Amino acid sequence: MAHVKIRVDSMKSFCNEVFTKFGFTKDESAIITDVLMLSDIYGIESHGVQRLVRYHKGIESGMIKIDAKPEIVHETPISAVIDGHEGMGQLIGHFGMELAIKKAKESGIGFVTVRESNHFGIAGYYAEMACKEGLIGISATNSEAIVVPTYGKKAMLGTNPVAFCMPAEPYPFFFDAATSIVTRGKFEMYNKAEEPVPRMWGTDENGHPCTDAGRVLRNIKEKAGGGISPLGGVDEVYGSHKGYGNAMMVEIFTAILSGGLTSNHNLINNHGGTCHFFMAIDPSIFGDPKELEHHLSVFLNEIRESPKREGKSRIYTHGEKEVIATEDRMKNGIDVDVKTLEEMKDCADYVGVDYYKYFGYLGFNIFYNPENHTQY
Amino acid sequence: MAHVKIRVDSMKSFCNEVFTKFGFTKDESAIITDVLMLSDIYGIESHGVQRLVRYHKGIESGMIKIDAKPEIVHETPISAVIDGHEGMGQLIGHFGMELAIKKAKESGIGFVTVRESNHFGIAGYYAEMACKEGLIGISATNSEAIVVPTYGKKAMLGTNPVAFCMPAEPYPFFFDAATSIVTRGKFEMYNKAEEPVPRMWGTDENGHPCTDAGRVLRNIKEKAGGGISPLGGVDEVYGSHKGYGNAMMVEIFTAILSGGLTSNHNLINNHGGTCHFFMAIDPSIFGDPKELEHHLSVFLNEIRESPKREGKSRIYTHGEKEVIATEDRMKNGIDVDVKTLEEMKDCADYVGVDYYKYFGYLGFNIFYNPENHTQY
Repeated sequence: MAHVKIRVDSMKSFCNEVFTKFGFTKDESAIITDVLMLSDIYGIESHGVQRLVRYHKGIESGMIKIDAKPEIVHETPISAVIDGHEGMGQLIGHFGMELAIKKAKESGIGFVTVRESNHFGIAGYYAEMACKEGLIGISATNSEAIVVPTYGKKAMLGTNPVAFCMPAEPYPFFFDAATSIVTRGKFEMYNKAEEPVPRMWGTDENGHPCTDAGRVLRNIKEKAGGGISPLGGVDEVYGSHKGYGNAMMVEIFTAILSGGLTSNHNLINNHGGTCHFFMAIDPSIFGDPKELEHHLSVFLNEIRESPKREGKSRIYTHGEKEVIATEDRMKNGIDVDVKTLEEMKDCADYVGVDYYKYFGYLGFNIFYNPENHTQY
Repeated sequence: MAHVKIRVDSMKSFCNEVFTKFGFTKDESAIITDVLMLSDIYGIESHGVQRLVRYHKGIESGMIKIDAKPEIVHETPISAVIDGHEGMGQLIGHFGMELAIKKAKESGIGFVTVRESNHFGIAGYYAEMACKEGLIGISATNSEAIVVPTYGKKAMLGTNPVAFCMPAEPYPFFFDAATSIVTRGKFEMYNKAEEPVPRMWGTDENGHPCTDAGRVLRNIKEKAGGGISPLGGVDEVYGSHKGYGNAMMVEIFTAILSGGLTSNHNLINNHGGTCHFFMAIDPSIFGDPKELEHHLSVFLNEIRESPKREGKSRIYTHGEKEVIATEDRMKNGIDVDVKTLEEMKDCADYVGVDYYKYFGYLGFNIFYNPENHTQY
């Protein structure tokens, strides 16, 4: 799909005004914008402004409650359970990790679970919040059930990503990945390109491997059966039961421990009910944080410097691709496809934001001239 | 390979005497035996008495130090770092999880990392220890580097299993899995059967996919390059980078936080240096443990009862297969192959245990008549 490059600061200002117009405070809008933009800056476009339309629709339909404030319903010095009261996921997530960080600084570990939230963006944002404070950060979320357990034919699990971040030099170890083999976004890409997906990615309405991306997506939407495979694919021979087990651990840390909805009960009748968890660990409970960080930095470097597969020039450690993407996006702007531009325009019209003020009339031309890759 | 069935209590008595003769105390021998036997009872034969020969060789070569006592080198109310001083892995592991359990009971969470240990058996044993006390248990270990990071051609990671156990009805959620696509034992099985392994399981000395099990095993032994793939296989298209990331998290929790050796430095020059971690969480830091357990039990049941793939009669939740195996093994005995019987005999001779007292002269016949499946 044709796309344009948009400067990070232009997009930030736009999103900030949009969320303020939706009724969020300035501080709240800044947090939501920050989470969205980090996705785009890290090159994870599927979770950035491409999602604006979902938040727009969620707020419009009343699924996301603008005035909801997260409430701590159970607490100890090292733990808390939060009821998000169906508010905006990014705000609840930010609140949850802030609380985990505070507890980690006071008690060594902060372990916070959340129920009754909504989609919170990329899990990695929250893990990174802890890392920026010199802590180890872990975050995870459940989500709408679109993943099928091994030997099942009904989606019972979310894509259930886990993110982990720990300080290291020259950049942190930053790992953020769904426990499913891929996310729905990958199916959408293949569907748009009219290409078959790899055999292990998903199953049809009878639970058999299915390479037709459109059929899998349609079945997911209509809850007709089948869906995306866990990491490890459709059979035990490649470890499907392991990805399924990892997804289960996420369900336990998010939905079970918070008393919230497991993924198979998420997003039913316009009720999100998404559950998260946030953990912050002060490394000093294990020794000198600088020594631990150095130890990790040495190991990451050993891996990067280890012999490469024939034909490959580089072994990435987790977080490196995000560093490379950040450098590019800050210089060249973020990638926005035409469909997202249209959704941004719709959203701007809905809340009464002047789209042209941010992106000019040239921005509008793109709808008519998709080959015009213009930078704003 | 031909195999016999041996009664659990016969094998327990035998192992207990063997370890006592090696110089362990009665209590220590009982722990080591218990860990080994749980593998066999759970049907994970690769980590049960089949491993006796490795412990035998490890003790004989001095890699495993019989008199070593685990030492707490850093401690807070919720955490500890243990130096295993190259002792027997099972004893260090048991000590580590006991400490984590104690801390969880006192402070809500116990998080213990361990350096300078040896192979500790199945990770699940320790996670289950916490579960038996009504806690959530997590354990993991690094190991000899036989797993190749995505786009590498040198094994830099262990198979790095993670185990997780939480109480539920009618049986706990018990998940124990390597972060690699399979373990070395699977390659050995295919090699013995002279069958090619599935394409994504491993790589050759140049880092390319390799289906020749013998070649991969030989390369691992000779450190000639290549090895086993992370969960997700050899390429990013199936999520190789995710399994690699999971293995990295295990390295961080085990080796980095304990100040110990990462897998790429394990088992070099007859020095194990294996690192573990143990976490126990008191569910009451999140609410009423009975309610949380009930919530999990309901969810597990929903998954088991959900629609099955065409041609499949059952969806397993993690831990069910172990329940089924236990029922079988307690009734019919554990599976022991002829090679293991020979190794048991060797070991018995080495420490001065009367093999025939336990398994009779008929036990010896098996060496000459491998088709004779006799039960002791």
